[in-house]
Amino acid sequence: MSGAASALPELGLLLSDKVDAEHGQRLDALALAAGRRLRRCRVSSAEPASIDIAFFSRDLYEGSSLRKPGPESDAFFRLADAAPRLRWLHVCSSGLDLPQYASSLARGVPVTSSTGVTAGPIAQTAVAAILAQSRGFDRWLPSQARREWAPLTAAARPADLDTLHVLVLGAGAIGLEIGRLCKAVGLRATAVRREAKPTPGFHNAIAFDQLDEALPHCDWLVLALPLTQSTAGLMDARRLALLPRRARIANVARGELIDETALAEALAAGHLAGAYLDTFIDEPLPADSPLWALPSVWISPHNSAASLGHEGRVVDCFTEHFQRWLQIPG
Amino acid sequence: MSGAASALPELGLLLSDKVDAEHGQRLDALALAAGRRLRRCRVSSAEPASIDIAFFSRDLYEGSSLRKPGPESDAFFRLADAAPRLRWLHVCSSGLDLPQYASSLARGVPVTSSTGVTAGPIAQTAVAAILAQSRGFDRWLPSQARREWAPLTAAARPADLDTLHVLVLGAGAIGLEIGRLCKAVGLRATAVRREAKPTPGFHNAIAFDQLDEALPHCDWLVLALPLTQSTAGLMDARRLALLPRRARIANVARGELIDETALAEALAAGHLAGAYLDTFIDEPLPADSPLWALPSVWISPHNSAASLGHEGRVVDCFTEHFQRWLQIPG
Repeated sequence: MSGAASALPELGLLLSDKVDAEHGQRLDALALAAGRRLRRCRVSSAEPASIDIAFFSRDLYEGSSLRKPGPESDAFFRLADAAPRLRWLHVCSSGLDLPQYASSLARGVPVTSSTGVTAGPIAQTAVAAILAQSRGFDRWLPSQARREWAPLTAAARPADLDTLHVLVLGAGAIGLEIGRLCKAVGLRATAVRREAKPTPGFHNAIAFDQLDEALPHCDWLVLALPLTQSTAGLMDARRLALLPRRARIANVARGELIDETALAEALAAGHLAGAYLDTFIDEPLPADSPLWALPSVWISPHNSAASLGHEGRVVDCFTEHFQRWLQIPG
Repeated sequence: MSGAASALPELGLLLSDKVDAEHGQRLDALALAAGRRLRRCRVSSAEPASIDIAFFSRDLYEGSSLRKPGPESDAFFRLADAAPRLRWLHVCSSGLDLPQYASSLARGVPVTSSTGVTAGPIAQTAVAAILAQSRGFDRWLPSQARREWAPLTAAARPADLDTLHVLVLGAGAIGLEIGRLCKAVGLRATAVRREAKPTPGFHNAIAFDQLDEALPHCDWLVLALPLTQSTAGLMDARRLALLPRRARIANVARGELIDETALAEALAAGHLAGAYLDTFIDEPLPADSPLWALPSVWISPHNSAASLGHEGRVVDCFTEHFQRWLQIPG
């Protein structure tokens, strides 16, 4: 290290050993360009007192489930939560409702998420399920498992895609991308958001207070909104009952947005035609949940964002935030 | 019937009882506008001698499989094949290789197909399977069947869609729509066609004689070309072996385009990662075919075109052809 660099004010960054090894030098250079000397604090050897910034990268999340942090996550947050001068936490998830983040949020540390990073893959997964069930794979695959050649004929044939109305609840990065993809493949897409204003990628938009009127005309209801006090239980038994029997539900947001018991009952009774669920109130979904084995219900294990490029994009997202953060005076 | 109309030259149209009931008057009007008096010959009561045109509508196909005509189809073609002055046959399918059509083709009757009509739904089904398998549903759904919460992690995660290369063999109505949809959802789409010329909806196009060089770089190989003497067996064991282990195959054209035994062996051995198959050499696919139970192989029973609007679109297609046909002198 040069004498000039050692004279610069030091900035402690808590990061995973993997990110340190793969991206450390690039982060050093960014800090140096902004007049700081980066002290990289690997999770395996960090001292809480020297941490200014903490980057909860995707590799540290492996082994966690939504409500149950894994061992690497535990090690990271033991350090971050003990860091007396922590000034910023960046996390790999879209939502800020993970229990690991609670302590930082409670003590007023600014927490930024990687919402844009997961939007693409999550939206692609949701639209994959919407398309595949809408075309008939929810009925073809069970026939295949029985080695049965059973074409969908007469009234059992799928409705044409351009007749299907998709309601997307939430117009954040994920909701916007779901709307864009639905429209691109020929579905009718309506955004449901705080205000009914023109929404890129959608045919139209309505406000949340119009939701109850829209539900009876909906073929797919897609949940893509954050879990907050006002959204918890949004799709309660009453609203589920407003959906027509042909309707299906996709949830790539949070299990708590839906009354899960009412949903399972509606699906089992044929009051709803199908579902794609990536999130659940209790994760991992217990083996005795009725949702596992309902007809035309597809489940992915809170995994809709899975993609090989994910870790790299989270690092890119952090790096962009980091560059901006370095410009903040003080 | 007015005296004026009865003086017009008569035109005998063989059609299903259903099409007669639902669309007969509209067809009468079209004929009248062109100076002909339409004699509608229902399948249930037609005389072969009075048939000039035969319309094999979608409803008459129900109960058939690709190589085995059903009873309604049999009744229709007994009449059409016995019609001494049949001048035109319009059929509901995309391909002209069904055994029902052989006799008309052999005696030189012009046969037109409804290829554009099925292109949309078939392409949507193919892209639904491509998207759903590419995002991980081919592995999530079997885990679900075992009530197992098994996220795809580390190297098991799906590759990002924008890194996947789709080769679409055939640039007819179906192939073009598959390319357009693949590109719309973020995949890289290359058309393989007779000549390497710019192809709407695709990133690029290559000629068939470049196929062997392209196969090793392919993530999805999609068959969307007609079965002819030159395409039969196109994907033989040698070409299948040129595909990388990560590659998957979608066939919405004809089973005979692929060496089915070599395909099943490659899938079973892990030399290919998955497949979506709608068509087979022997249909219905025999219950003892190994294809039914291979991992990451999805089967639909020659049903990729299924949609509620199909019958109506076939009638629209025939009607357009009919209007043009009525303008032909003689």
